[in-house]
Amino acid sequence: MNILLTLSYDGSNYCGWQRQKNGLSIQECLETALSKLYRKDLSVIGASRTDAGVHAYGQRALFSLPDNEEIHIPIHKLPLVINSALPEDIIVTEAFFVPEDFNPRFAAKNKTYEYNIYNATYNHPFLKRLAWFVPGPLHLSAMEAACALFVGTHDFSGFCAAGGSAKTSVRTIYSASLQQSSCLGSPLISFTVNGNGFLYNMVRIIVGTLVYVGQGKLSLDEVRDVLEHGDRKKAGKTAPPQGLTLMKVYYEPFLEI
Amino acid sequence: MNILLTLSYDGSNYCGWQRQKNGLSIQECLETALSKLYRKDLSVIGASRTDAGVHAYGQRALFSLPDNEEIHIPIHKLPLVINSALPEDIIVTEAFFVPEDFNPRFAAKNKTYEYNIYNATYNHPFLKRLAWFVPGPLHLSAMEAACALFVGTHDFSGFCAAGGSAKTSVRTIYSASLQQSSCLGSPLISFTVNGNGFLYNMVRIIVGTLVYVGQGKLSLDEVRDVLEHGDRKKAGKTAPPQGLTLMKVYYEPFLEI
Repeated sequence: MNILLTLSYDGSNYCGWQRQKNGLSIQECLETALSKLYRKDLSVIGASRTDAGVHAYGQRALFSLPDNEEIHIPIHKLPLVINSALPEDIIVTEAFFVPEDFNPRFAAKNKTYEYNIYNATYNHPFLKRLAWFVPGPLHLSAMEAACALFVGTHDFSGFCAAGGSAKTSVRTIYSASLQQSSCLGSPLISFTVNGNGFLYNMVRIIVGTLVYVGQGKLSLDEVRDVLEHGDRKKAGKTAPPQGLTLMKVYYEPFLEI
Repeated sequence: MNILLTLSYDGSNYCGWQRQKNGLSIQECLETALSKLYRKDLSVIGASRTDAGVHAYGQRALFSLPDNEEIHIPIHKLPLVINSALPEDIIVTEAFFVPEDFNPRFAAKNKTYEYNIYNATYNHPFLKRLAWFVPGPLHLSAMEAACALFVGTHDFSGFCAAGGSAKTSVRTIYSASLQQSSCLGSPLISFTVNGNGFLYNMVRIIVGTLVYVGQGKLSLDEVRDVLEHGDRKKAGKTAPPQGLTLMKVYYEPFLEI
């Protein structure tokens, strides 16, 4: 019996999704909660290994129960029950039955990430944990033009940190756009990107590059050049983790209940 | 030499604006920072005594320096310098010179508050500190109609908690409205109210009443009745503090730089 969960978390206090020896991970918290509920050691597989400080609105995680499982919790009550055993900053919002061979990572068709930039004179006490504070003028229309360069199928090796395990650095970005919005009275610049996969730190390096474009430190031609020749050193710096949120992981329609 | 500061804070970790024996207040943090900078005991007067857990985007605070003050910090650099001595969740964003007889509380012409409600099936890890989580259906158009009832000059004794020090409970509300917005991917209902003054817990009781209207627990006629007869017991419950933010305190135009 395979169960897929959707979960939201504030990543501020965690070492990331993946279980680690030297810090508390989201994965460990979820496994501890499930193991307590079902009174046996249970492990989970996540759709995305979010980094330390990165948030999620729609992460996915799979766990398996034996078919003769004695503790029956109705699937629609499962989020509530699991939440009672989780820390306050991790919340399960959905639970679905999925086929036996389902892998939440490899079955993912595409993912949406959002990155928030707070552009003001002084940082905002509410947004410190949720956005990258970038003071000074930003040329938004140049940043919007740069967004468009990333859309399509490209070799993103210039937008990838060392340490990833991907076999190829070719990915397809279906959409990439900037929105100006207001959150709790403060103007936010939100970058939303949807693609079939993302390399290690790829969204954060794209955002760092967009900010360089907005600050006039990189031209559109220079960004095109990094996309063509894959030189990581010529792209922008890696934007900090707290601005990034994994919004949604999409699967085949049968899973979208 | 009188200096007026504008400040933002995340009130989650404080016992409120006002200095208290049994908890850390925003006032104490600001006074400690200023006293350290100027190497003498300095006190501040706030425009509004926000409660424990209530936030501010545009609180105001006044402090005085002797005219022969030896430590000269240019007024435009003052926010940056004070921020270096403040905790991370309190930020000074503006500093102005004001006349000798200026009192930030009594000179206030009107104030704007915002109250955020998160209406969803499960709470949101990002918004727990910043919004009131209200699950279940809410009838928004009824809530909007109820907002309009508060606009104008009324005796708000039915919307006031015991313990305030006001001589009269008559106040004028210039505007009150609901907006549906999105913050970090999540739908928020924001109540914005501007008025010439607010009684103790007045905004939070109005919001509690609006939510009762949205849930069908109070009719518009019943809200009108509380406004006319001032029976606190017939209004809604007091909404929790974390949804409330003091957005701006308005003074005469000479101060709006």
